[in-house]
Amino acid sequence: MTGLLSTIDSPADLRRLTRAQLPALATELRDFLLHSVARTGGHLSSNLGTVELTIALHYVFNTPEDRIVWDVGHQTYPHKILTGRRERMGSLRQHGGISGFPLRSESGFDAFGTAHSSTSISAALGMAMAAHQKGESRQAIAVIGDGAMTAGMAFEALNNAGVLDGRLLVILNDNDMSISPPVGALNRYLAQLMSGRFYSAAKQVGKQVLAKAPHLFELAKRLEEQAKGLVVPATLFEKFGFNYIGPIDGHDLESLIPTLENIKQLEGPQFLHVVTKKGRGYDLAEADPIAYHGPGKFDPKVGLQQPAQAPKPTFSQVFGRWLCDMAAHDQRLVGITPAMREGSGMVEFHQRFPDRYYDVGIAEQHAVTFGSGLACEGLKPVVAIYSTFLQRAYDQLVHDVALQKLPMVLALDRAGLVGADGPTHAGAYDIPFLRCIPNVSIACPADEAECYRLLSTAYAQDHAVAVRYPRGAGVGAALPDDLEGLPFGKGELRRQGRRVAILAFGTLLQPALAAAEALDATVVNMRWAKPLDLELLLEVARSHEAIVTLEEGAIAGGAGSAVLEALQAARLPLPVLQLGLPDRFIEHGDHAGLLSQLGLDAAGIERSVRAWLMPIEVAKGEAS
Amino acid sequence: MTGLLSTIDSPADLRRLTRAQLPALATELRDFLLHSVARTGGHLSSNLGTVELTIALHYVFNTPEDRIVWDVGHQTYPHKILTGRRERMGSLRQHGGISGFPLRSESGFDAFGTAHSSTSISAALGMAMAAHQKGESRQAIAVIGDGAMTAGMAFEALNNAGVLDGRLLVILNDNDMSISPPVGALNRYLAQLMSGRFYSAAKQVGKQVLAKAPHLFELAKRLEEQAKGLVVPATLFEKFGFNYIGPIDGHDLESLIPTLENIKQLEGPQFLHVVTKKGRGYDLAEADPIAYHGPGKFDPKVGLQQPAQAPKPTFSQVFGRWLCDMAAHDQRLVGITPAMREGSGMVEFHQRFPDRYYDVGIAEQHAVTFGSGLACEGLKPVVAIYSTFLQRAYDQLVHDVALQKLPMVLALDRAGLVGADGPTHAGAYDIPFLRCIPNVSIACPADEAECYRLLSTAYAQDHAVAVRYPRGAGVGAALPDDLEGLPFGKGELRRQGRRVAILAFGTLLQPALAAAEALDATVVNMRWAKPLDLELLLEVARSHEAIVTLEEGAIAGGAGSAVLEALQAARLPLPVLQLGLPDRFIEHGDHAGLLSQLGLDAAGIERSVRAWLMPIEVAKGEAS
Repeated sequence: MTGLLSTIDSPADLRRLTRAQLPALATELRDFLLHSVARTGGHLSSNLGTVELTIALHYVFNTPEDRIVWDVGHQTYPHKILTGRRERMGSLRQHGGISGFPLRSESGFDAFGTAHSSTSISAALGMAMAAHQKGESRQAIAVIGDGAMTAGMAFEALNNAGVLDGRLLVILNDNDMSISPPVGALNRYLAQLMSGRFYSAAKQVGKQVLAKAPHLFELAKRLEEQAKGLVVPATLFEKFGFNYIGPIDGHDLESLIPTLENIKQLEGPQFLHVVTKKGRGYDLAEADPIAYHGPGKFDPKVGLQQPAQAPKPTFSQVFGRWLCDMAAHDQRLVGITPAMREGSGMVEFHQRFPDRYYDVGIAEQHAVTFGSGLACEGLKPVVAIYSTFLQRAYDQLVHDVALQKLPMVLALDRAGLVGADGPTHAGAYDIPFLRCIPNVSIACPADEAECYRLLSTAYAQDHAVAVRYPRGAGVGAALPDDLEGLPFGKGELRRQGRRVAILAFGTLLQPALAAAEALDATVVNMRWAKPLDLELLLEVARSHEAIVTLEEGAIAGGAGSAVLEALQAARLPLPVLQLGLPDRFIEHGDHAGLLSQLGLDAAGIERSVRAWLMPIEVAKGEAS
Repeated sequence: MTGLLSTIDSPADLRRLTRAQLPALATELRDFLLHSVARTGGHLSSNLGTVELTIALHYVFNTPEDRIVWDVGHQTYPHKILTGRRERMGSLRQHGGISGFPLRSESGFDAFGTAHSSTSISAALGMAMAAHQKGESRQAIAVIGDGAMTAGMAFEALNNAGVLDGRLLVILNDNDMSISPPVGALNRYLAQLMSGRFYSAAKQVGKQVLAKAPHLFELAKRLEEQAKGLVVPATLFEKFGFNYIGPIDGHDLESLIPTLENIKQLEGPQFLHVVTKKGRGYDLAEADPIAYHGPGKFDPKVGLQQPAQAPKPTFSQVFGRWLCDMAAHDQRLVGITPAMREGSGMVEFHQRFPDRYYDVGIAEQHAVTFGSGLACEGLKPVVAIYSTFLQRAYDQLVHDVALQKLPMVLALDRAGLVGADGPTHAGAYDIPFLRCIPNVSIACPADEAECYRLLSTAYAQDHAVAVRYPRGAGVGAALPDDLEGLPFGKGELRRQGRRVAILAFGTLLQPALAAAEALDATVVNMRWAKPLDLELLLEVARSHEAIVTLEEGAIAGGAGSAVLEALQAARLPLPVLQLGLPDRFIEHGDHAGLLSQLGLDAAGIERSVRAWLMPIEVAKGEAS
């Protein structure tokens, strides 16, 4: 690190630099960032793209008094580095370390916690209207990518903001690439805005006119409006009541800073269109921003390397394999992703079956109801969606799928804890929030082979079935070479023990089996959170003194509660110990480490069961 | 009824009429509709507005082969009348009768079940793409109001549809009035489209050119485009990749029919902007479409009458009263509604506190996150939202409120069954889907006075609290004249009985008390589904042989399950009977009648408890 970055412990320090020093700072910051992420892993491409924008925003605006809401939030490493967290970047996304996302509890500069996309305009508008109501003149700024702009929520906020009188600035960080390649009419429209004379002209405006003096800004605006009149008559964003400025080069501090300084003087909702490049400044990432979206550790000099040994396939890959196999077998299958082609393991499906592949953009609501429409016509929609993002389509699942009893496979990736991404991305609630909906079933495969087979089972049903599986790889179970399903709603006895039975839902079956050896407990692989395998459950209940339920999901209302309900309905109120996620948000950190901390590894399960059984043993001793 | 309508038992009959006969049919249909709704109650204004559009659609398109998806669906009475359900209109919204919404199980002409807004474009696009995949040439049509167009979901669908090659027609039924008065930039924009020369010119185009012959359509299109070029350079919808046509007069069959016939010939996504008037043809409804939005029975000759005796205030009105009282007391309070000012009881609040009132449009997602932004700045957001519509903002509640532990009062109206509106509007799932989220509490007032006081309690917390209350009026409890809350998380013993204790959550406390008299049971008014009053619960558990839980909500994962979990955690696995809503969607019908059918009135509770206790008594008898 050379001289500048090390002197900056807050934006106040940044604002003491001359404007001429900023390009050098940007170079240092980008270099620091690259080497920091290479050591810790984390998001790279998006952060390389926001270096100059971050510097410009903190240079021009009076943060933290002015509020910056970073949409999605995985592009905030430069922001973290400039706001007093440079030294802590080595602990990024590690247990006890700083978060990979903005966090209100981590810094006063993190105005809003983000991670799910497209929340920033709503939140910033709330902040702007609060300032308005309190008579404060602070600015609220939402920085949102072009991918995030396709979510309905962003549109709802624009629609509302355009008629309100808040000091709101929306900055569209247009890099023409969300995690998956961009799709949809909006992206096409933005590309049109950026193409041709208009963009060049605006660039000239930014460089030659705005840079000189703020009082020339009005002239520049008029010129710009004329230019717009010639090429693009009126932008979509102006129709929403915003003053549209741009597009300008988001890596050119000499465009960014004067433009932002001028925008500060304007009244009413402002919309600045900034063009950046993901991976900017690191050739390998510029060439393949998807690969460098969220890399693990790597050597910046050589870039990402293929591992010497092929890793075990992830559950996402298992799903992708099943999807291709079933699509080859059944013409009716249609695959839908809300902008998560890579994360959901759908790249091969897209390549092999382009006519039956729909990336609908970051649009979970639409993804599900679009699937309903397909199902009405006899097709078989498979919607791949992270558990946490299904929360965005909850009403659609109730109202458009379950109520009409339409078939749909919901491939729920990232169920349970997700490790470094933390609580915003954890899939902790799907069992409770799905279990209460009629006509919805929930399968919980214990390993990759079961995942494959339960997807086939789900596909064969005439109603919606969610198959929930965790992030990453499982035990490495060999995949089936046929599309036979497992019986619907049926579990299996995995180990016959005595007195206590552990009912495992999902991949925690493995530590349950290990714990059961020490405890001599019975172990049941329940496989289905809904419907429960009542026959098996009651048989086990009648032949054991106590039951332990185990799931990587919220205890409140989860699969264990379904067991309690079923036992009561059958008049078998046995003692039951519910193991799962407690009623608090679980911080980020290593997945295995977190499970261990929560007592959900083999040792923890054994410990909990022993401690819980002790009074029962004592009571039994007294009774006998 | 004169001659035409009675001959029409299906759209095939309609299509046998000459075009000259259609205006007379419209008159008959409107008259039939008015008198039918006056007898049954139901939605009126919206249906009077769609008479001509419905006739035109079924006349021009080959329904049911072509699919019409009616957004929101409460404007489909003319559609029902023309598609074989004329004779059944007398049973509308009654138990066993036809639904007030389209229902796939009710008719092959109801291509998609709708009721929640803004689903139609997604569903119709799915149908269009299914046809595309199957090589069928059918048309898919979404009819969507301008209010519904403000929801993000509609935007997500437009964004996706604009780049797909489906035979999709979106008809914007622009009546400039959703249930509440319209808000937002989009409405302002639509008003601009309709104003001045452009609309008149298009009207002329529709009347003079299109009516003559289809082959003139292309010319008309070109003229129209020129007109557009003069007044509105390019519509927002064209930026989304749609071919925009309109606006045209939606009550003028001579505009509608030729326009639709021409659109049938066009390729690619089409967008037709139709202008209608809610309440059209019935002066009283035209003058006050909000009052006639969903009237009860009335005499069409005299219109709605004030009831001789003031009715008991509804829970919505109780909420409205509390909101005004608290707003007068605390400057920080901000009230937010997603386009439900009337339904949520916020008219007076809007009038008295316009600066702290936000109608954000049909935009539940934005409503909640906008509230989060306000809360970040120290204001106190109160979001009034129907239980069923909170499903639309589920992720926002988890990610933008609970995860950041921001304070928010969620005034959950229409919790439980809702009567005539049926399962789409029932608030059956909020306890399970809220209970699993950390940092969220749930209050269940038993009567109006408790509702008022628990809102105050909710308001005083530093995290999100939902207060759930049913549709309609309660027992008529007098409201407090102060803003004191009830203790957070505390229930109360209401009746001391013996052996069995009924734990009531919410307004079913009243039938529980009645049943308890016959049973000599203890009754506890639990008041909070989360947190449970553990102290009281365990005291009751230790002093009784069995427990009954009672809630107007889904049993699966509901408040009763919270009791089961708590009893197990306390090692008190008593026999528990869970009473509430079963795991199926409950059809529409009279609210009290449905509760009775489900065994949730006093007699039903008594009956269920007696039947359930019998084996326990027997077992006790054997043991003693």
